[in-house]
Amino acid sequence: MLVLISYDISTIDAGGQKRLRRVSKECLDYGQRVQYSVFECEVDPTQWIFLKDKLLNTVNLKKDSIRFYMLGSDWKRKIEHYGCKKPVDLHETLII
Amino acid sequence: MLVLISYDISTIDAGGQKRLRRVSKECLDYGQRVQYSVFECEVDPTQWIFLKDKLLNTVNLKKDSIRFYMLGSDWKRKIEHYGCKKPVDLHETLII
Repeated sequence: MLVLISYDISTIDAGGQKRLRRVSKECLDYGQRVQYSVFECEVDPTQWIFLKDKLLNTVNLKKDSIRFYMLGSDWKRKIEHYGCKKPVDLHETLII
Repeated sequence: MLVLISYDISTIDAGGQKRLRRVSKECLDYGQRVQYSVFECEVDPTQWIFLKDKLLNTVNLKKDSIRFYMLGSDWKRKIEHYGCKKPVDLHETLII
């Protein structure tokens, strides 16, 4: 299934930049950055429990916010992209 | 239906800040900001055609990117929020 993850990390304090880096690194283990603070991660239910737990332990819930959108398995027809920096479709045939 | 709108607007040029303000204003006409550059808009099909057209005419498709996620009408169970700044649920009973 595809999970869209969006977040606002407070970077007022010194730890904010560190949390920001960690959250993006954790998301990149399972997906790709589609906009500055928005990631799409394709995970199975077990991977999702693991990733969600890691993310919720990384953010500071008193200062930051994080949102998860469950887009299911039939997610391709639900997403439209316009403009530059179109993310890679990892399911498309790769011609080398 | 609920449409999640996320965008990256390039603010390198002078027009970027203006586009940023206009995009957020256009989204606010139909929904609420849930994170810095993420909005949730509840629209019917006609409103969506109108809003999408306005947004695509506001952004600079060579410099910015904008993504639309169609979350349908059964969107409540698909969204989870953690941390601060929880958005208002516009469908909940308002006690004055």
